[in-house]
Amino acid sequence: MTKRVAVIGAGPSGLAQLRAFQTQAKRGEEIPEIVCFEKQDNWGGLWNYTWRTGLDEYGEAVHGSMYRYLWSNGPKECLEFADYSFEEHFHKQIASYPPRAVLFDYIQGRVEKAGVRDWIRFRTPVRHVEWNSNTGKFNVTSHNLVKNVTITEEFDFVVVASGHFSTPNVPQFEGMDRFNGRILHAHDFRDAVEFKDKDILVVGTSYSAEDIGSQCWKYGCKSITVSHRTEPMGFKWPENWEEVPLLVKVEGNLCTFKDGTTKTVDAIILCTGYQHYFPFMAEELRLKTANRLATADLYKGVVFTHNPALMYIGMQDQWYTFNMFDAQAWYARNVINGSIKTPSKGEMQEDVVARVAAEDAIEDDYGAIRYQGDYVKELIALTDYPSFDIDSVNEAFYQWKKHKKENIMTFRDNSYQSVITGTMAPVHHTPWKEAMDDSLESYLEN
Amino acid sequence: MTKRVAVIGAGPSGLAQLRAFQTQAKRGEEIPEIVCFEKQDNWGGLWNYTWRTGLDEYGEAVHGSMYRYLWSNGPKECLEFADYSFEEHFHKQIASYPPRAVLFDYIQGRVEKAGVRDWIRFRTPVRHVEWNSNTGKFNVTSHNLVKNVTITEEFDFVVVASGHFSTPNVPQFEGMDRFNGRILHAHDFRDAVEFKDKDILVVGTSYSAEDIGSQCWKYGCKSITVSHRTEPMGFKWPENWEEVPLLVKVEGNLCTFKDGTTKTVDAIILCTGYQHYFPFMAEELRLKTANRLATADLYKGVVFTHNPALMYIGMQDQWYTFNMFDAQAWYARNVINGSIKTPSKGEMQEDVVARVAAEDAIEDDYGAIRYQGDYVKELIALTDYPSFDIDSVNEAFYQWKKHKKENIMTFRDNSYQSVITGTMAPVHHTPWKEAMDDSLESYLEN
Repeated sequence: MTKRVAVIGAGPSGLAQLRAFQTQAKRGEEIPEIVCFEKQDNWGGLWNYTWRTGLDEYGEAVHGSMYRYLWSNGPKECLEFADYSFEEHFHKQIASYPPRAVLFDYIQGRVEKAGVRDWIRFRTPVRHVEWNSNTGKFNVTSHNLVKNVTITEEFDFVVVASGHFSTPNVPQFEGMDRFNGRILHAHDFRDAVEFKDKDILVVGTSYSAEDIGSQCWKYGCKSITVSHRTEPMGFKWPENWEEVPLLVKVEGNLCTFKDGTTKTVDAIILCTGYQHYFPFMAEELRLKTANRLATADLYKGVVFTHNPALMYIGMQDQWYTFNMFDAQAWYARNVINGSIKTPSKGEMQEDVVARVAAEDAIEDDYGAIRYQGDYVKELIALTDYPSFDIDSVNEAFYQWKKHKKENIMTFRDNSYQSVITGTMAPVHHTPWKEAMDDSLESYLEN
Repeated sequence: MTKRVAVIGAGPSGLAQLRAFQTQAKRGEEIPEIVCFEKQDNWGGLWNYTWRTGLDEYGEAVHGSMYRYLWSNGPKECLEFADYSFEEHFHKQIASYPPRAVLFDYIQGRVEKAGVRDWIRFRTPVRHVEWNSNTGKFNVTSHNLVKNVTITEEFDFVVVASGHFSTPNVPQFEGMDRFNGRILHAHDFRDAVEFKDKDILVVGTSYSAEDIGSQCWKYGCKSITVSHRTEPMGFKWPENWEEVPLLVKVEGNLCTFKDGTTKTVDAIILCTGYQHYFPFMAEELRLKTANRLATADLYKGVVFTHNPALMYIGMQDQWYTFNMFDAQAWYARNVINGSIKTPSKGEMQEDVVARVAAEDAIEDDYGAIRYQGDYVKELIALTDYPSFDIDSVNEAFYQWKKHKKENIMTFRDNSYQSVITGTMAPVHHTPWKEAMDDSLESYLEN
């Protein structure tokens, strides 16, 4: 009997899983039946853009947190697929911080070439996954939104690749229920032009805060005030940008911060992070973890220790992204095809404990980058995912951090060398802060 | 063995169900064990107000479509509980179009007096309901969001009372993905002041379109353009309000309509209705119906013909509201306690067919009001819900329609007579269009 594998999500992590199996099939080996469930009408996960917010046309929570004019906030050389370079896709080397459409095209290119689109059931969210100890299989209930029909099927393995930047973490501050403007989470931010000539308050110091604030600045908002809980981001911000302590209360449009200062704003943008959210997983299968490098309950960061037929891809806090998902997907594939045997539950749990302790001992961001680089190395060594020079990628991350520190509004104008092809990226034709056109066509005019 | 009843939702319909059982218990009769599952942290359903939009602090879709400054858009005399009058609650008669806080207080008053709050599990959405033909019971899986724990329990009966004004119907128009302003559905509208001095486009001709447009007008927006698919609402609108044909495309902030006219707007508010959405119900239990007076598959508008242990309350398109939910809840209670026997599936389906045919024969809104009044009469005759003068309520609806036609911005200044207590409502101290304070305290200053 052919084994059946359910992959939940067709974003970068889920597509990595499909690609992992396809490379095996291409070698002429037998692979399981793969069914990939995707809520959206296209692949690409967060890299799809939709103007929709809140709930989509089928009543499902909108997956995307993507906004217009987003450019990669890290060098493309740090996320390049080891088995499909930017040069292979674009037939030339391109600049280092591509806008969304370019990265979407790149992600899509690999899986189009692989021919795995037929494995995906679009517009089909998974409603419920449970383990049947009698059959030793998972019952997976999914909803075909187009036909409005729900069915339940058996699977031998489940790979959850639904991401963790889709369900916002939304705190409340006193008086928000009487604020006379728009309050939104970064998840619902779509177009910086909406905030032109406006005074905006950004709450949080995450990548979202940094980037959404920068977008609004670039597209002409009047002022940006960023409120932090612990400490300011500390970049050299433009003149109309200030960092203030935590928001304490809102009265009308007047915001008061912890140090007693106030600011009247038109909109409040909560850049307060995301939740790991898997309401479709039965209690005993549900990953409950903080957003950290060493997740809870995942052996090798992938296999669910409480049921090793269940895997989670991409659930870590991330420096590494696409190529780390690949390493995880190749590892998961090997567990599924039996070429990697997972140890006892106790040993798997010891692995998690050791990873958590090692993460807790990290001293700074540079250490965190090395830690995650080492993790990617570890997985690649266990699979046939093409090896690449991770030390040099770590080095690119360090350079990136230095460039941001030098000038947060020009760091995207720098270039890096690909560790896959060895080529240096060209300098982009237009500095980021003047480049208003974020189309693929414009970006490729090198 | 005590039977167990799951009630899904603690809004007006769910609370009606709790009240129906409580009246029986109060008479000293034995009642089943009732467990009411509520996603929100308080009762009242849509009558709760939250500033939140999209997803809530637990990652759940926000239930509420309520906005600030909402005043009832129909006379309170048409929705008065037959067993708990406005005068009983407020110790005096009050004006006819109360703002949200006043109606919330009224709904709450009856169930506080009944003492049923302990029957409700707050912050506990239902994830999955399925029928187990071996046990002849429902398996109901619910998620305690606070503890983050999912459990499955057996119930003999399930009453779905989760409403149908929470999941927006959101159409797409060409160019929306490049609109440079805010696009929102009425479900996410919160504060008209956000749109002060703005040009807004409202799409749709529903109550939401009429009322959100009126709110924005009252709170100082620059202009209101309302786009209709079939025909304009046709009220006598203020000078800065125009009705136009359907939106065809959006370019930047420029909207083009079917007649070739254009309008530059700052925001697009989609008042395009809601979906009946029950993703937590197994395929064979899920109500699939249009929003109409005679729903599909519900015998007497309540009992699911495919499984008469399952009931749906308040799923009709509505002229009648609170008191209709009451009549349905009393009916459902009698089915559950066995004092009403449901006929064969074939007979139940014939009942549905007859209702649909009768609705299809209705000629106008006046006929629809009579139709739904007759339906409420029919259910009351089968239960001990206190009878009330439905012909006079129909008459109040006719008057209300006339008042709206006379002046859409003053219709809320009219008064009606309670059919429960016979008292005439006082005229409110301030005309609606000048009453900016929507607090309970202000409203009760009669």
